[in-house]
Amino acid sequence: MAKPIEDNSKLCIHTITTKPWNLEEASDAYAKNGVGGITVWRNVLDGRDIYQTGEMLRSKDLDIVSLCRGGFFPADSESKRKVAIDDNIKMVEEAAELGAPMIVLVCGAEPSQSLEKSRGQIQKGIEAVLPHAEEHNIKLAIEPLHPAYADTRSAINTMEQANDMAEKIDSEFVGVAVDVYHLWWDSNLKREIHRCGENNNLFAFHICDWKFPLDDILNDRGLMGEGCIDVPQIREWVEDTGFDGFNEVEIFSNRYWAMDQNDFLEKIIHAYKHKS
Amino acid sequence: MAKPIEDNSKLCIHTITTKPWNLEEASDAYAKNGVGGITVWRNVLDGRDIYQTGEMLRSKDLDIVSLCRGGFFPADSESKRKVAIDDNIKMVEEAAELGAPMIVLVCGAEPSQSLEKSRGQIQKGIEAVLPHAEEHNIKLAIEPLHPAYADTRSAINTMEQANDMAEKIDSEFVGVAVDVYHLWWDSNLKREIHRCGENNNLFAFHICDWKFPLDDILNDRGLMGEGCIDVPQIREWVEDTGFDGFNEVEIFSNRYWAMDQNDFLEKIIHAYKHKS
Repeated sequence: MAKPIEDNSKLCIHTITTKPWNLEEASDAYAKNGVGGITVWRNVLDGRDIYQTGEMLRSKDLDIVSLCRGGFFPADSESKRKVAIDDNIKMVEEAAELGAPMIVLVCGAEPSQSLEKSRGQIQKGIEAVLPHAEEHNIKLAIEPLHPAYADTRSAINTMEQANDMAEKIDSEFVGVAVDVYHLWWDSNLKREIHRCGENNNLFAFHICDWKFPLDDILNDRGLMGEGCIDVPQIREWVEDTGFDGFNEVEIFSNRYWAMDQNDFLEKIIHAYKHKS
Repeated sequence: MAKPIEDNSKLCIHTITTKPWNLEEASDAYAKNGVGGITVWRNVLDGRDIYQTGEMLRSKDLDIVSLCRGGFFPADSESKRKVAIDDNIKMVEEAAELGAPMIVLVCGAEPSQSLEKSRGQIQKGIEAVLPHAEEHNIKLAIEPLHPAYADTRSAINTMEQANDMAEKIDSEFVGVAVDVYHLWWDSNLKREIHRCGENNNLFAFHICDWKFPLDDILNDRGLMGEGCIDVPQIREWVEDTGFDGFNEVEIFSNRYWAMDQNDFLEKIIHAYKHKS
């Protein structure tokens, strides 16, 4: 059994989940509801003083869980790959300034080449960013994405591949972000979550649900309990590894973004308590 | 290297690929272009004399490769599962009448229960149909479907799972249909195709492409060469097992269905020759 959820202290919400809110609105509402953590999407930092933004979030007692999202390393030319690496290095500096201990990596895929080749470029990309991550004490979490995104978004599509990559790079600063939306279908998931924990690579846990029918593979994610993912079961596997971090709600949903965001937040908290 | 494609004798087209055509139009056009095989979707048999339909196709020198599609075994009640089994038994009889040596199984998934439980019901379903399949000399091909369909269409989402299932059932009448659209992203694909061949379970090979961006996960499949799947590479792996059957073009596409179907057939044949 997964541990019962007593309060919102281990609940983290991604700013993208409540996209219509600006960062002040989001952080106010999260804090007022006792939400313990916030994962900041990079777009909300545009035009802001990043250090002051971190101070503002900390003043509301929100843990900054991670900065989302780096990656997109594969490309069909050396110069494009260099641009991606430089941008990830810049993001490491932003995370340090913000006070986020971790960056989530959506690793990317270049559709004109094999997934294997893209994975090689991902490894090289992460290795190029790694010294900067170590210097600034920022962890890098590889997020395997659903195979439906293997064309352009990620050549890493299973926990097995993410584990392989993290173990090859073999640094305490490189691990894996487990997202139920991407991974729920995989019959090797329990085994690979266990392996991830054994290697101290389980860095983050993202939750939502897979609705059916799905209107849109990208922006029709469901609230926990609304679809076919057994979130409590996967949370149990994650906690069984000793993982004690946040349960991060990351929902892209045209439907929910069109709602009053206070009502949506209420739904998130209800689903977190009863269906996660 | 995959064998060069010299002519259309090993090309098979699924009737659903040219959905706007009725069976007379489709079979005339396929035959006129030297297409060697046809896979009949069950909907086109509605209201027809099935035996005469088979005779009509044979008179045009078309090999009837398979009848598509049975399956959908999992359900949340015994009575619904019985309905599914009965329907598959009826389909075996239809295949025999038509003269199709094989049925393709889209195995189904029941979203209110675990995928593991659905897979158990799939196994039981296939085992219940198997004696009828043996009696009528009809093969049953398990088609693993892309993980994006794990909610309702198939609890079997990788070649590894399809191989596991076929090997558990262990009958010369039960094997696997390899479809590049569903499987291309899997880093274990080469290994599992090899395994499938070694166990004499590789029954069918379906081709198309994965476009990007994809407008619709169901009805926006691409022609070979139009997306990111390395079809010749996968064909090589399939042929390396000794597979000598048809290359079956199965494309669901609102875009292509809206075209003149003769023009579309020309495109299929060109893509088959040059991009498969």
